[in-house]
Amino acid sequence: MKTFDHAIERYRSEINNRISSILTKREPVSMYEAGRYVLDAGGKRIRPLLTLFSCDAVGGKWRNALPAALAIEILHNFTLVHDDIMDASDSRRGRATVHKKWNENIAILVGDALIAVAYHSLLESTSGRLEEITSLFTDGLLEVCEGQTLDMEFEQMYDVKVDHYLNMIEKKTGALLRIAAAIGGVIGNANAKQLKALHEFGTFLGLAFQIQDDLLDVTAELIKLGKPVHNDIKTGKRTFLLLYANEQASKSQKLILQHVFNRTAGSTREINAVLDVYTQTKAPDAARDAVAHYTSMAEKCLDRLPKTEGRDNLRSFANMLLGRDY
Amino acid sequence: MKTFDHAIERYRSEINNRISSILTKREPVSMYEAGRYVLDAGGKRIRPLLTLFSCDAVGGKWRNALPAALAIEILHNFTLVHDDIMDASDSRRGRATVHKKWNENIAILVGDALIAVAYHSLLESTSGRLEEITSLFTDGLLEVCEGQTLDMEFEQMYDVKVDHYLNMIEKKTGALLRIAAAIGGVIGNANAKQLKALHEFGTFLGLAFQIQDDLLDVTAELIKLGKPVHNDIKTGKRTFLLLYANEQASKSQKLILQHVFNRTAGSTREINAVLDVYTQTKAPDAARDAVAHYTSMAEKCLDRLPKTEGRDNLRSFANMLLGRDY
Repeated sequence: MKTFDHAIERYRSEINNRISSILTKREPVSMYEAGRYVLDAGGKRIRPLLTLFSCDAVGGKWRNALPAALAIEILHNFTLVHDDIMDASDSRRGRATVHKKWNENIAILVGDALIAVAYHSLLESTSGRLEEITSLFTDGLLEVCEGQTLDMEFEQMYDVKVDHYLNMIEKKTGALLRIAAAIGGVIGNANAKQLKALHEFGTFLGLAFQIQDDLLDVTAELIKLGKPVHNDIKTGKRTFLLLYANEQASKSQKLILQHVFNRTAGSTREINAVLDVYTQTKAPDAARDAVAHYTSMAEKCLDRLPKTEGRDNLRSFANMLLGRDY
Repeated sequence: MKTFDHAIERYRSEINNRISSILTKREPVSMYEAGRYVLDAGGKRIRPLLTLFSCDAVGGKWRNALPAALAIEILHNFTLVHDDIMDASDSRRGRATVHKKWNENIAILVGDALIAVAYHSLLESTSGRLEEITSLFTDGLLEVCEGQTLDMEFEQMYDVKVDHYLNMIEKKTGALLRIAAAIGGVIGNANAKQLKALHEFGTFLGLAFQIQDDLLDVTAELIKLGKPVHNDIKTGKRTFLLLYANEQASKSQKLILQHVFNRTAGSTREINAVLDVYTQTKAPDAARDAVAHYTSMAEKCLDRLPKTEGRDNLRSFANMLLGRDY
């Protein structure tokens, strides 16, 4: 797996270098300062990496996909800035969020401006299929808004079904992974069959990725992620585990889960009671099964691509993302 | 001017019909309901009309410019939704604003989604120059964000120069008028010279339009606009008149204007004192001169276009917009 390790290191450093020099404009000060603050915050750069590896996987040149990869990373950062306002989150990646460090108005504007900056980067792509790329990108933007709206609607609901939840994360988490893979493919000049495979790959990857994220909230491995253990339970987040457990729960078990829905599960005793219901309803097992299922579906999509080192690297990337050996 | 009257009526009704059927999607309910609420609110449809007339003016077919015209109107509505949050405005066009009728989160999301919906409409344009169109559109989006940021920065400042103000409105008001004209031109297959003329025409039109709007706040003709008289003075809005007067004012006159800057000019007596300073410093005259100047500059741009009925109609449209005989 040496080639993969080498590739990802190179790609990531290229992404980080380029993204830092995107917002060189100085005026208006408050907007561009905040914009640079967001883009320089780091992060794992999952989406742009996915674009570059997807371009490789259909025989394209990853460098051609760089402007689009950056565009998708910038679009992702727009979602973070606006989501943080909506969720009233004070910190992200160990730093104050934009609306906290500046104010809400600046955060709204920076998010809006990042959309434009993202399109500008996208339009720098060298491809004869720019219309298709722009259209996919716009699909992603709309879907991510739909996903976030559904997520917010769910926050007020007490009977969200797992199916609805899957539909929501397919948009909220899936949309950008989907377009990351698909746009990388288009720039690599994928044919219709390959493009469909990458599109579906991104969707399944998104589902696996999000459910695994939900799972990590109740497993012991959380410290790595740098987020508080059982944070989802405390904050009443509608997760795969909560909704699955609620579907399976008896009346008395449902009462315990209501603490999560109502955001009143604060004490260790309450959290443990919730975790017990999760275990009794086999929610973590179901989540693990779902992750395995969607991972396997994603794998199968890759089988439809030509057998190349690029495809192997994309597979390695997916495995890495899902915390598996690669 | 029969042809113009006929054209504008036809164009406007086409815009209104089409825009009502753009958001047919139902889910997520809160997002699409609010989106329809915004797009159905009416308004003068100035920007899309400008796109259609600009397309005509270079010999294009206005129907080809309809998707782009709608895109620009949708983008304009995005700015209204987000600006209303930032300005904490409770009503617009006689109805509750989105963040008031729903909530701030929905308003943020609807605005974001409208950007995507706008790009989708734009991409439906039939033109061999779609890349150029998308690039202009993205310029407009970024500039309108910059303009709004500058406007917000000015709200905290007490020594804004008229020059800075002109730079701000060239972005905040000018950007969408500029791209409306330019994109209409591109779809009409304008050559470089014509495109430059339309681009500059949009800019000058924007400047004239905004300064005239500032002027209307202190003239008697306000009732037509349906907004409270002297609203800008009461809310401390940085307008051409305020900033011009402040540049010309003596020390004692400046003290009076500070009431506007500090948003403490509430009573009739205070407002009259401010109006007196405006008159003494000849601010309304200067504003009128500026409107006349930018109108004349805009007119001159039109002289660079081929002599056609389309150009005459575009000129009539500009005159109508600036409340002059046409």
